[in-house]
This record gives sequence, structure tokens and C-alpha cells, in this order.
Amino acid sequence: MISDRKLEHILLCTHYDVEYRKDTGFKDVELVHRALTQVNSEEIDLSIKLFGKELKSPIMITAITGGHPAAFNINRALAKAAEKLGIGLGVGSQRAGIEDPSLKATYTIAREEAPSTLLIGNIGAPQVEYAEAAVEMIDADALAIHLNPLQESIQPGGDINSSGLVDSIKGIVENIKVPVIVKETGAGICAEDALKLEEIGVAAIDIAGAGGTSWAAVETYRAEEKHLGRLYWDWGIPTAVSTVEVAETVKIPVIASGGIRSGLDAAKAIALGADAVGIALPVLKEAQRGYREVISVIRRFNESLKVAMYLVGAQNIEELKKAPIVI
Amino acid sequence: MISDRKLEHILLCTHYDVEYRKDTGFKDVELVHRALTQVNSEEIDLSIKLFGKELKSPIMITAITGGHPAAFNINRALAKAAEKLGIGLGVGSQRAGIEDPSLKATYTIAREEAPSTLLIGNIGAPQVEYAEAAVEMIDADALAIHLNPLQESIQPGGDINSSGLVDSIKGIVENIKVPVIVKETGAGICAEDALKLEEIGVAAIDIAGAGGTSWAAVETYRAEEKHLGRLYWDWGIPTAVSTVEVAETVKIPVIASGGIRSGLDAAKAIALGADAVGIALPVLKEAQRGYREVISVIRRFNESLKVAMYLVGAQNIEELKKAPIVI
Amino acid sequence: MISDRKLEHILLCTHYDVEYRKDTGFKDVELVHRALTQVNSEEIDLSIKLFGKELKSPIMITAITGGHPAAFNINRALAKAAEKLGIGLGVGSQRAGIEDPSLKATYTIAREEAPSTLLIGNIGAPQVEYAEAAVEMIDADALAIHLNPLQESIQPGGDINSSGLVDSIKGIVENIKVPVIVKETGAGICAEDALKLEEIGVAAIDIAGAGGTSWAAVETYRAEEKHLGRLYWDWGIPTAVSTVEVAETVKIPVIASGGIRSGLDAAKAIALGADAVGIALPVLKEAQRGYREVISVIRRFNESLKVAMYLVGAQNIEELKKAPIVI
Amino acid sequence: MISDRKLEHILLCTHYDVEYRKDTGFKDVELVHRALTQVNSEEIDLSIKLFGKELKSPIMITAITGGHPAAFNINRALAKAAEKLGIGLGVGSQRAGIEDPSLKATYTIAREEAPSTLLIGNIGAPQVEYAEAAVEMIDADALAIHLNPLQESIQPGGDINSSGLVDSIKGIVENIKVPVIVKETGAGICAEDALKLEEIGVAAIDIAGAGGTSWAAVETYRAEEKHLGRLYWDWGIPTAVSTVEVAETVKIPVIASGGIRSGLDAAKAIALGADAVGIALPVLKEAQRGYREVISVIRRFNESLKVAMYLVGAQNIEELKKAPIVI
Ligand SMILES: Cc1cc2nc3c(=O)[nH]c(=O)nc-3n(C[C@H](O)[C@H](O)[C@H](O)COP(=O)(O)O)c2cc1C
Ligand SMILES: Cc1cc2nc3c(=O)[nH]c(=O)nc-3n(C[C@H](O)[C@H](O)[C@H](O)COP(=O)(O)O)c2cc1C
Ligand SMILES: Cc1cc2nc3c(=O)[nH]c(=O)nc-3n(C[C@H](O)[C@H](O)[C@H](O)COP(=O)(O)O)c2cc1C
Ligand SMILES: Cc1cc2nc3c(=O)[nH]c(=O)nc-3n(C[C@H](O)[C@H](O)[C@H](O)COP(=O)(O)O)c2cc1C
Repeated sequence: MISDRKLEHILLCTHYDVEYRKDTGFKDVELVHRALTQVNSEEIDLSIKLFGKELKSPIMITAITGGHPAAFNINRALAKAAEKLGIGLGVGSQRAGIEDPSLKATYTIAREEAPSTLLIGNIGAPQVEYAEAAVEMIDADALAIHLNPLQESIQPGGDINSSGLVDSIKGIVENIKVPVIVKETGAGICAEDALKLEEIGVAAIDIAGAGGTSWAAVETYRAEEKHLGRLYWDWGIPTAVSTVEVAETVKIPVIASGGIRSGLDAAKAIALGADAVGIALPVLKEAQRGYREVISVIRRFNESLKVAMYLVGAQNIEELKKAPIVI
Repeated sequence: MISDRKLEHILLCTHYDVEYRKDTGFKDVELVHRALTQVNSEEIDLSIKLFGKELKSPIMITAITGGHPAAFNINRALAKAAEKLGIGLGVGSQRAGIEDPSLKATYTIAREEAPSTLLIGNIGAPQVEYAEAAVEMIDADALAIHLNPLQESIQPGGDINSSGLVDSIKGIVENIKVPVIVKETGAGICAEDALKLEEIGVAAIDIAGAGGTSWAAVETYRAEEKHLGRLYWDWGIPTAVSTVEVAETVKIPVIASGGIRSGLDAAKAIALGADAVGIALPVLKEAQRGYREVISVIRRFNESLKVAMYLVGAQNIEELKKAPIVI
Repeated sequence: MISDRKLEHILLCTHYDVEYRKDTGFKDVELVHRALTQVNSEEIDLSIKLFGKELKSPIMITAITGGHPAAFNINRALAKAAEKLGIGLGVGSQRAGIEDPSLKATYTIAREEAPSTLLIGNIGAPQVEYAEAAVEMIDADALAIHLNPLQESIQPGGDINSSGLVDSIKGIVENIKVPVIVKETGAGICAEDALKLEEIGVAAIDIAGAGGTSWAAVETYRAEEKHLGRLYWDWGIPTAVSTVEVAETVKIPVIASGGIRSGLDAAKAIALGADAVGIALPVLKEAQRGYREVISVIRRFNESLKVAMYLVGAQNIEELKKAPIVI
Repeated sequence: MISDRKLEHILLCTHYDVEYRKDTGFKDVELVHRALTQVNSEEIDLSIKLFGKELKSPIMITAITGGHPAAFNINRALAKAAEKLGIGLGVGSQRAGIEDPSLKATYTIAREEAPSTLLIGNIGAPQVEYAEAAVEMIDADALAIHLNPLQESIQPGGDINSSGLVDSIKGIVENIKVPVIVKETGAGICAEDALKLEEIGVAAIDIAGAGGTSWAAVETYRAEEKHLGRLYWDWGIPTAVSTVEVAETVKIPVIASGGIRSGLDAAKAIALGADAVGIALPVLKEAQRGYREVISVIRRFNESLKVAMYLVGAQNIEELKKAPIVI
């Protein structure tokens, strides 16, 4: 059952260590302290524009869940927080909701609680035929297509036939009206793949690199035979590396995610070229408590992001993108 | 007694830590994740051709044993597994079997149980006069000449007169009809030596580099006076380094071995230029249990090799050889 | 109350670990041993000239305190020691003493006890209007303007409006008669900011880099909500890096400080281009005991600095500046 | 009393940890394994020529002691071993024996027990007037002038007036008939100083670099006030670095010493350019037991040096000097 697997994923990600043991690479990236900063911190502007919508912060919550009763409360809390804070939000893979209409409400609650902010749908690349339904279901502003070959490789019985993948994505891009984001789920995207995505008309790339949630890790806990999962636990392109590679290669917006754990990480990702920053694991536990807890997490990210901007002398996100970095 | 020493080697390698403390170098080699892989994992082709024979996987079992009653069962299990899996297999040094015909069966069992697959004979470089007998004994498809100056240096009373070594090898190459492989046994081969081997007509090189079984380690356990063994325990060229050096220098096939411990290591070795990959220690314990256990080890290697190929977008070994690597 | 905060700072710096966990960078800087040194150690000349005054050693005590009754004894001990040793001394921020005349004595004691040596006043950059009063209060030979955006960011309610900062400094420079030093307080100064400071007429720069006292650390202890402080504990440009960057960029004197913990560190800083070296934390505890203890600390710095000079063959500070370094 | 200090030094070096905590650098130097070595190990020739004398191995015992009754037995054992093995030997500083004739026998025993092999006298650079007496006392084949500015700096009351040092050495060189070696005592010699020594006619340089016996360490144990010793414990140019620098700069013979702890280290030093290799600490304990123990230590050095030569394919020391190295 997809639905049960979803619950398992939530429980494993909430209670077990599912992160990469290797680093995102941000530890080796240093922003340059500007003792002569002339910024007034009160006037720092965190807002960005994405797909025509203004977001009050570059921090967004990327795809987590949907399709299981437990997902209803999580998506409600995330959406309420996103709406209050004016930030972007993605729902988890909508396949379950499309295949089993009784599960739809676990997704639609997101739009109900977040009527105005950027809401992003989510399907897998092979599910071309679900694209329109997914967008409609939540009146999505954009649709994310997730790539997760690592997870599928480790998960017993995973879908490891990727032939025609690029054509599938192209098909979706050409047939739906909202912008299409292609996102990894924790193993990163390389320059060459990013270029191909830009060529076929993808509107933005969420690189979701290695260093945060590891789907090989998650599936190791679920598998009986654990050797594959252990071997590939740390597979993938570190987030900082993937961010810089992709941002230097394409002109479409780049979302950096995967192991972003503070506003300082976010600042480094933006200085490396990202236009926005995504988080998933850092809000998972709090979303199960309520939207106030989610707000409080995001506020910390915003607050520490502002400190970095103040200290490097950046008044807004555009200036932060130009801040020099030392590696 | 050669024969007793062989048993000791098997027991030490089965029960003691005989590996290099230094790394093969593969830890620092990263394959590039391709989120846009278009490979159908079910159709990945692991087969290679070596010396005119098709092998169902690039993983081969290199020389381990022969010449002691205990070797009989080991070689039977290895051969049965190799035949069932269609992979290459080497027997251990045949000198004992040539000098003492009563030990022949411990080698010939390999060909009996593996009538069709690639079977490789094994002698030391000085034993020119044994070359033909070795090939005949097991109807070998190829003959491996092993080089082990490190072991001979540490072993009390080892043969440390290597004068005329190159001429000996040349003599063997010119006088037997099967292709000749020159293999190290765990200390690696440098570019210059590889070039000399190619020049004198050697058909393939098994670099057997540092990082796996250390013959200095093995002999440390056997020696009374242990200072030499301890000092040289980690001597040699790391497998990843030796692989890339030799593969870039010669045109003949290169077998990478020495500390290959998973299909992921194998994939890295092939991306570094190897045509095939050898293992010894990882099947030693299992071979003492039975052929099914050996099959199960090799299957894991094949399985994890396939995951790497899927994730880097390689449909077959030729494509894997072209996969980019990051160091 | 500023005054209470000052006491807290002293207590925290005396009894808690308030230093950067990351290194100053001096560990990676090696002076070159000269076996053929021809120096007579008895004749080594440590003296430097700063702002027209001769100092008997390049080691100076930078701004620590003032403005709280406890500061009186500290400044008395520091000044007595500085006078006896003929070294430079800075007082802590004089704002408290200007705003509350009853606290003036905690600063003026410094000049009373150190009538002849270089005494440096101290104010924050926004306090333009206090500049003259600060100089007059202690008959200062120079005025230090401190920059501490990191501390202000971490400290709850800190002043994080830095707009117009450069103009404020320029205003001070143009309006007071003594030379103006701009100093950081532990996060370092980058080349670009140093250049700007030189352009607007600043007379010297104290880079006060990362590696010693961390004001993010100090404020972490004081804050209830500690996440910001922990995240930024190690923010800043390491002292060795900041020293070399600034010294290569500007022509005005450069004072290296922040984590200088021995005469050997001091020697390295000078070989990297510094004209003088500042310390604060190493004398804080001793200053609370008495001037003799302070003298004894400084003597150790002088003594170990001399050993370095002897071993690299430098007869005086000018020669030490030319000593080669290996990184 | 010099004499008592000498005993203290021997006791400290025998029973305490007096070595550098930092590395000689040899760990990062790798010789290249030659699987195709064509050397016959039995015929490896370890001999070298130094100052016209043939030595049976490039390993020599450098200056250790003399001038205290306890030194008599040590020098006897060292000399007996050196004579039997045909290797070079240095005595410790002869100043004590010159100033107090009753101590002469502690040096002359060396020549008595080693009538034929290379015996090296030893004085400090300022003791110009002792040079001839030192040579005569033991009928020395060469005279070593030791440089030890580090020890003198740490030792309370050490001689830290080095003015005129180069002229002193020049004076000795010009006035005695045997070749003059200049040696450090554990802090290494840099290229520039080596060049100066060659220019004034010195016949050989013993770089005695950092990584083995640390005279700052020894003097730390002796000093009451330990801060200087602890700070400078690791001062100096690592042996591998000093060896390669000096060997590439001068044409006179270079002796590598300081932390050479096996024939493998010795092989690396020679491949880096040294003509001979010195050891002191490794024979100190054994020399107090008897000459057989010293012989056994040196044999191990010779034996492990031969293994390295065999494995890199070097038949003699000249060939080892040309062996490639990887850093
Ligand atoms: C419990 C959980 C469920 C997720 N489900 C989805 C999903 O359905 N679709 C998707 O595109 N990504 C999914 N992700 C991946 C995240 O969007 C994100 O790319 C990844 O977790 C890396 O970010 P992090 O390190 O901040 O968690 C999920 C992540 C978590 C933790
Ligand atoms: C018990 C044992 C016996 C071996 N005997 C031989 C041998 O007779 N001839 C040979 O060429 N290599 C021999 N080898 C070396 C292997 O073929 C291989 O080169 C080496 O062990 C490195 O691979 P590994 O790290 O996977 O063990 C032996 C290895 C082992 C573990
Ligand atoms: C207790 C304490 C109080 C300080 N107060 C001031 C101050 O008022 N003004 C200032 O410019 N720097 C102040 N500093 C910073 C020092 O002058 C110096 O730049 C910094 O501590 C780095 O040097 P250190 O690692 O040797 O402590 C203070 C430092 C300490 C330890
Ligand atoms: C106990 C002892 C005494 C020494 N005495 C002298 C000496 O008198 N003259 C000298 O030139 N070197 C002397 N040395 C230095 C050694 O000759 C050598 O340069 C140094 O110890 C580095 O080598 P090692 O690490 O093998 O000990 C002495 C060394 C030791 C251990």
C-alpha cells in the first residue's frame, strides 16, 4: 500500500537518523565578514519573486507528504504556517490522492489553509497522465516532478525502469499550464542534467542535494536485506556542489535544498547562486505538533539568514547573491 | 612444506585482519549521480569479453589456492559458483601441484566443476619451466604469472632474487599458447612496469593494488621477528591509483583488484579504466562453506554494481567505462 | 544597564570558555628556523614606534574595560603594567563614562597610572559626538573606534542599524586631532573594508580577527534563546588570514589581534605583515589580581617573542617583518 | 657542571618522551613499488664512501655523548658496534674532555674500540680554539660542529649570543686538516644556511631536522619554568623537508637525521637526496646494555633498508638516490 509506506516514511524520518553522514559541503564555504557593513538590519528585505508570486522569504517548504490520514494534519499545519509567513509550500507526491479519491482531502487541505501563497503540486516523472489532475486538485501555482532513482534502487521492488524519462518530463511541460519544477529528493542534480531540463522547458530546478535526508537511509530501515542501503547511504552530489554547478549552468531559477539546517546554510546557498532555498526534514516533527511550531522554525531560519545578510552587508537577496565566498 | 604454508595462509586470511590499514583510494573517487538516468535497470548488461570468452559479469575471482587438501573444497565451491554465474576464475599457484602430483586434484577440480567458463592458471615468474604443465593441468584458458616481491621480502627465507625476472616472463609468453596475465598480489603495478609488460607481449595486467589483502600482514602473523612485516604492512600503490595509472598507459586489458569490496568499488574501478575487476578475500570464507555462499557474495557484487550503473546512466560496461568521475 | 553588562562580560570572559573553536590560522604558519642565526639575543630590540611614541615591545593591551566599579582595579593594574613595561594600552568603550560622569574615574585611572605610554581611547562608530570627550577624558594619544556587528547581532536588542557607518567614522577622523584606529573585536577585517578605512583617513587598523575571544560566544551565555549565538560562535575571518590580507592591502600600520596567545603567535603575525600585536583575554584574569601578574604575562610574551626572533635571525622588529614564512 | 647535565640528558632521553609531536614528513613521502624489480636482494650493496673512507652502510650513529663517566660505556658499545659493522660514528661534544682532561677517556675509548672506521669529533661553533684538540683527542677522521640555538634558547642560562657564528665556523674550517661537518641537533637546516656553509668550505651537512629528539622537549623536563619549552617543543624544519631543501641546494654530501626510525625512513631520506643517514636516539638505550644490542638495532635498519631497495629496484645507494618518490 502506498499509503502505509507514506506513514512509515514519516515515522522513520521523525524518529530515526535518516541523514547523510557526509556533509552538504556548506561547512567548507565561508561568507566574508564585513566589519564595515552599512546595512540597517531592520530594513533587510528577504522577499523574492517566484513564478510571478512574491514570497516574503526565500525559505520554502518542499514536498513532504499527502495520501495518508496522518498527512492531513501535517499539511494543514504546514499550509497555515506558509500562509501566515507568505512563503512557498509543496505537497508530497499526489499519486495516492489521484488513484484513491478518498485521500484527496489530505492534499486539498493545503490550498484551503494557504489560499494565497505559492503552492506546488508533486508527481513522479513517469506519471505523465496525472499531471493535470495534480495541478487541479490543489489549484497549484506550479508542479514539481520528483526524481528519486536512488530511493527506487534501494527500496525492494522499486521502479527502476527510467527509459523515456526525459520525454515524460517534456510531455508534462508541454501539456500543463503552470510552470514545472524538476526536483531531486536528496541525491542532487549535475550540470549536464540541469542543462537538459532547461532545454526541454522546465521552469525551475530544485537540486535537493546530498547532505540532508537520505532516501537510501530511510529505505535501509525498511529493507530486510540492508547491504545495498548501507552501501549507498551516502550516494549523491553534496548540496553545495550541486547548487554551484547548476546555478552556473542554467538561467532558470535554482532552488537549493537537501540538508539546509539554518539561515546561515541558506545564506551560503544563495551566495553560491541559488534563488530560493528548500527545507523538509527541519519542519517535519514540528508540523506534527501544530502550525505555531512550524512558524517558529521558519522564523529562526529567517532570523539567522538576516544576521548573515547584515554581516556580509547585503540589504536584500539580490545583494546576497553577489556576496563573495571563500572555499 | 609449501603445502602447510598454504593452509596457514588460508587460515590467517579467514580468521585474522590481514588487510591494509591504508585505503584503496576508492573512498576519494566519486561517480556522478545522474538524476536523469534513462536506463532500464532490468536491461543493464554486465557482460564483458575477455580472451575471446564471454563473461556474464566483470567481477572475477582471482587466484586463491590449490596444493593442499583443504584447497580441494575451496576450489570446488569457487568453480561451481563461477560456472553457474558465468564469471572468470583463477586457481592459486600451481607449483605445488606440479612438484607433487598427488596434489593435482586440488587444482583439476576447478576445471571439472567449471568446464565452460574462463579458467586461469597460476605460476610464479621464476617457474618458466612449469608454465606448460600448469596450463595443461587445468586446461587453462589463460595463465597468470604472479609477482609478489613484498611477500617474499617479509617471509623468512623468501625468494628475493629477482634477477632476470623480465626475461623469465618473456620466455613464458613466447612459449605457451594461451594468453598470459601478469598479476601482482596486493602491492600494485606502476605505469613503467605495465609498459614493460605490454612490450614483452603480456596479454593482460591484474594490478592487484594496495588496500585489500596485505601479504606483509599475513607474513607478520607467521614471522617470529615481526618488525619487518609491521613496517611494510602498508607498502604499495593503492588500487585506485594503480588502476588509473596502468589503464592510462597500456592498451591491453586491465584487471583491477586488491580491496574491491562491493559492486560500488567495482564500478569506480571500471570508471577509472579497468576492463574487469578481481576479488579474492571476499569469497574465501564463503568458499569454505559451499558454492551457494559464494554465489550469494557475487550476486551482491553484481547487484550493487547494477545500482551504480543505473544511477550513473550506464546501460553496459562500455558505457560505465566512460562515466565521469570526481576525485 | 550598560554598566551591569560590562561586569557580566568580564565575569564571563574570566570564568567561561569564550573563545572560537576554530583556529586563528597561526598553527598553519611556520617561521623558518635559521640554524646559522647570528643574532645576539641579549641585543634583540623589541621596540617599535607607533603614532610618534616609542613602545618597548610590539605587544599592546587592547581595549578591555571601563564604566563599572570593577573596571577601576583592572584598568589600574593594566596601566601600571603598561607604564612599567613601556607598552601601549587601550581602555574599553568610554560611552558609559561619558554618559555617566560618576564612572569617569574607572577610565581616568589608566592615564594616572600610565602618564607616559601610549594610551588609546575607545568609542563605538555611531558615537560621533563622544569622540572629543573620549580623547579628553584620558588625554588619549589615539582613539580607537570599535566595530562589533557580530556581537550586536547576537546580543538581544543589539544595535544592528549600521547605515551611515563609514560617514560616522569619517566624521570622527576629520574632527579630532589624535590619530584614529579602527578596530574589530574578534571577527576580523577584510581587504576591501581596510582599503575603505585607509581612504577616509584612518591612521591604523586593529584587525582583531577570529580565533580568540568570540563575542558571539560571550553573548550565547547571556542570551536566553541560544540558537543564534551557537550558530555564529565561529563566524569571522581568522586572525592570520585577516592580518595578511589587510597588511598586503594598506600602507597604514596594522595591529594584529584576536587569539594571540604567545610571543610565537606574535612573531608569526609580525612576519605576516603586522606592525604591532594586541591581546586582551590573556591579561584579563591577571589584571584582577594586580599589576605584577600582568607584567609577568607580558614578560612571557616578550621572552617567547625574543626566542622566535633569535631563531629566525631577526635583530629587531623590522627584520622580523621580513622573515620568510611557510604556510 | 657540564658533566652532570650530560648525565641528565642521557637519562631524560632514555626514559622520557623527548620526541617531537610533529612528524618528520616521511609519512607523506611514498617510494614507488616496482613489481618488476630485477634486483637480487643478496647482492644489494649498501656501502657508501664518505671523506675517502668506505662505510658498509649509509646508516651512521651521530653525536651522542662523552664527558661523563656514564658516557664511557656508551661510547665503548657504540664504537665496538660501529667497528664490527663498518659504519660511521660521532662522539658527543668534546668540550668537557678538553676542559677537564680526566674525562678524556670517555671519548678516546671510541677510537680504541673503533680503530678503522670513520670517527667524527664534535664541538660547538663558538669553540674555535678547541677544534684541533678535539680532532687530536680521538684521531678523528672528520670534525662535526654542532648548532643548537633552540636548545640554548630553552635551557636556562643557555648561550644565546650567536654573533660571529659564521666566522667561527670559517675559522675552524680553515685551520684544521680533517673535513668539517656542520650539524644541527634536531631543528633542521634551511637552504639558505646550507648554501652559506658550502660557501665557507664546510665538507658536509648533517641537517638533523625536526621529528625525532627535540632539545626543547629535553630542556622542558629540566626547566622549572616550562612555558618556553612547551611552546617551542615542536619548533623546526621537518627532517624530510630539510633534507630535500638542502640536497637540492648544495653539492657537498648531505646527512639526513632527526627522527629516522627505520631503514624505510632511511630509504626515503636517500631517495629525497641524502647521501647518508644519521641516528642517535634509537641506539641510546641499547648502548647502555652493550654493543651486541647496538649491532642488532643497526642490523634491523640495514635489513629494512634492503627491503625498500629491493622493492624499488635499487641495487645500490646510487640507484636508490634516483628512485622516484610520490608526495
Ligand atoms: C518525510 C518526507 C517525505 C518526502 N516526500 C517527498 C515527496 O513525496 N515528493 C518529493 O518530491 N520529495 C519528497 N521529500 C523530499 C524533500 O522534498 C527534500 O527534497 C529532501 O528531503 C531534502 O531536504 P531535507 O534534507 O531538508 O529533508 C520528502 C522528504 C521527507 C523528509
Ligand atoms: C588466501 C589467499 C591466497 C592467495 N594466493 C594467491 C596465489 O597463489 N597466486 C596469486 O597470484 N595470488 C594469490 N592471492 C592474491 C589474490 O589473487 C589477490 O591478488 C589479492 O588477494 C588482492 O585481492 P583481495 O584484496 O580481494 O584479496 C591470494 C589471496 C588470498 C587471500
Ligand atoms: C572582557 C573584554 C572586554 C572588551 N571590551 C572591548 C571594548 O570595550 N572595546 C573594544 O574595542 N574591544 C573590546 N574588547 C575586544 C578586545 O579589544 C579584542 O579586540 C578581542 O578580545 C580579541 O582579542 P583577544 O582574543 O586577545 O581577547 C574586549 C575584550 C574582552 C575580553
Ligand atoms: C642523548 C643525546 C645527546 C646528544 N648530544 C649531542 C652532542 O653532544 N653533539 C651533537 O652534535 N649532537 C648531539 N645529539 C644530537 C644527535 O646527534 C642528533 O642530531 C639528534 O638527536 C637527532 O637524531 P635522533 O632523532 O635520531 O635522536 C645528541 C642526541 C641525544 C639523543
